[in-house]
Amino acid sequence: MPRRTLGTLPNKVKIVEVGPRDGLQNEKAMVSTATKIELIRRLGEAGLSVIEATAFVSPKWVPQMGDASDVMTGIERRDGVSYPVLTPNIKGLEAAIAAGATEVAIFGSASESFSQKNINCSIEDSLKRFRPVMTSARKNNIAVRGYVSCVLGCPYEGDIAPDKVARVARELFEMGCYEVSLGDTIGTGTPIKAQNMIAAVSEHVPVEKLAAHFHDTYGQALANLLAVMQMGIATIDSSVAGLGGCPYAQGASGNVATEDVVYMLNGLGIDSGVNLEKLVETGHWICSRVGRPSASKAQLAIAAHMM
Amino acid sequence: MPRRTLGTLPNKVKIVEVGPRDGLQNEKAMVSTATKIELIRRLGEAGLSVIEATAFVSPKWVPQMGDASDVMTGIERRDGVSYPVLTPNIKGLEAAIAAGATEVAIFGSASESFSQKNINCSIEDSLKRFRPVMTSARKNNIAVRGYVSCVLGCPYEGDIAPDKVARVARELFEMGCYEVSLGDTIGTGTPIKAQNMIAAVSEHVPVEKLAAHFHDTYGQALANLLAVMQMGIATIDSSVAGLGGCPYAQGASGNVATEDVVYMLNGLGIDSGVNLEKLVETGHWICSRVGRPSASKAQLAIAAHMM
Repeated sequence: MPRRTLGTLPNKVKIVEVGPRDGLQNEKAMVSTATKIELIRRLGEAGLSVIEATAFVSPKWVPQMGDASDVMTGIERRDGVSYPVLTPNIKGLEAAIAAGATEVAIFGSASESFSQKNINCSIEDSLKRFRPVMTSARKNNIAVRGYVSCVLGCPYEGDIAPDKVARVARELFEMGCYEVSLGDTIGTGTPIKAQNMIAAVSEHVPVEKLAAHFHDTYGQALANLLAVMQMGIATIDSSVAGLGGCPYAQGASGNVATEDVVYMLNGLGIDSGVNLEKLVETGHWICSRVGRPSASKAQLAIAAHMM
Repeated sequence: MPRRTLGTLPNKVKIVEVGPRDGLQNEKAMVSTATKIELIRRLGEAGLSVIEATAFVSPKWVPQMGDASDVMTGIERRDGVSYPVLTPNIKGLEAAIAAGATEVAIFGSASESFSQKNINCSIEDSLKRFRPVMTSARKNNIAVRGYVSCVLGCPYEGDIAPDKVARVARELFEMGCYEVSLGDTIGTGTPIKAQNMIAAVSEHVPVEKLAAHFHDTYGQALANLLAVMQMGIATIDSSVAGLGGCPYAQGASGNVATEDVVYMLNGLGIDSGVNLEKLVETGHWICSRVGRPSASKAQLAIAAHMM
């Protein structure tokens, strides 16, 4: 008789909501600061405990994040909720601290070509650049999260060997990142590949310090999350309404939608602390504000019944 | 150290392509017979070995299937490909045989309310109605596939107990169906529920005689398929481009897209015999014919690179 085989799932999952930053940064039309602040407020009200709020990057490169300081000083901070921001360098870190950030994130890549094209330097140089950020963050009591991109494929190199991912993840962890988020930037991963990657990384970084940041570009994100949760992954990055799209394939999906993740977690009896109904309303609201359809199937199905 | 846990997946999966029937039947605008025949031809060329071609039902109820005889007599039959058709009753079966069908399918429900509203009779009566169909099919050497709807939820009753599904599946199997397809008609299933349902059904029907017919309405289909493949399920129903939509939630998704399934299977090293590139072209083509966007994320991502 076939037996059930999903007995090893976590009881609780922490969701890191990346919509206001990773989601909105790819929107071409400028989103007002007030809308960003309201989005962050609604996400907090829906029960998200980690909300990546903005990025302190050059407005020349990412115009949509040009109001980072105004967003950070404008948001209402809820107890028990953290609002990390992206800071690629010491200048960004200083601006973030000045705006009241207490948690930041740095961004490396497992692909040499992607690192060169995306942040204009080698993997090695990017890691060097992060060291003064880490030192200054430690001095200022700022927690630092590390991202690794292209962990299951690169738009320029194709497949990425799991040990390359493991090397960058280990460096970030040893440098002092409290958590390392593993990004399937182009969404080409499938469940066994995802498990192989986690197996390789967790030889160097404890699995409870890892997060899965999977994109749904090929519709695989939930299956991949199910696969890696079976290995102990209990932190998931996602974006309300799947905001963001995929910059590498016009019209295609990007970040997995928070609604779809929460729907699956609810069904699996895994506590995320998120109120799905409020989340769906928030997804509906932000989509109407930015004038795009939701990329969340759960959102569309639930909204069809609710609204 | 976390171990990989997906070692028990099947080596091969048979895909039952339901786009021309289950997909198109919900399209409001009439699709020409020539387009249907061409769709079936292209699907065969893409390597699908089972293509549900049409339904011999009253055109009063399903106008889109009113050309069932013309479709069946018009298609070019490839060696090694079967073209089952839906036949709810003896009249449908006779028309199907007259049009050259060699395989048919009958359609029951695990939900009493859904049975009443969808086929206007109780589960019990529907099973009785199938008996003369089975007898006549056997006499004519026609293989019969059985469908059970609402196996993971009903639009009227909500949750459906796994033993209700098991009872209907067993009846269909004992009646002589060579395979029983288990339909998550409204797509509300999640992985543990799907595994519990398969566990219950496979106490009465061997798992190799079961098919998973999952809808992607809440984005859960691939995760659910991954879960049940871990229990030995090796037959999957899907629809090219996710054709069909969800009749119970306007604007929401229905059948899981064949492209997304094949993309996952390819990544898992599971042989389906399908050429993904040809399938993506077929999905693109039929969407342009029926004037709707594809519901397949893999199709959109691949097409963005191909076209």
